Amino acid sequence: MRIKELRDSKGWTQVECAEYLGFHPSYIARVELGGKNVTLATIDKIAAGFGISLEELFKGL
Amino acid sequence: MRIKELRDSKGWTQVECAEYLGFHPSYIARVELGGKNVTLATIDKIAAGFGISLEELFKGL
Repeated sequence: MRIKELRDSKGWTQVECAEYLGFHPSYIARVELGGKNVTLATIDKIAAGFGISLEELFKGL
Repeated sequence: MRIKELRDSKGWTQVECAEYLGFHPSYIARVELGGKNVTLATIDKIAAGFGISLEELFKGL
């Protein structure tokens, strides 16, 4: 997922991004590190939090 | 995910699709019904099994 790219485009830190998307403050850092095998429900929540489609979230991947 | 659309385009039944992608025979049926909160690792495996990108798997979603 393009979380870091999307987060950077909004100028959010990992903690700010986690809070805006409704996750624990350390969650986005762990997802970006690849340490989380996130579920589709979480992926939906991330896309909704960024206000984009799932297709956009996986653009180029 | 566009599993049913992709599966239909290949003319696969749900059981054939599960076997070709390396899952239990009933797995794809449950995913299509929305009964499975699949993980990103499984999503990667599904895209790879169809020979498409993640972006294509979520096209239009």
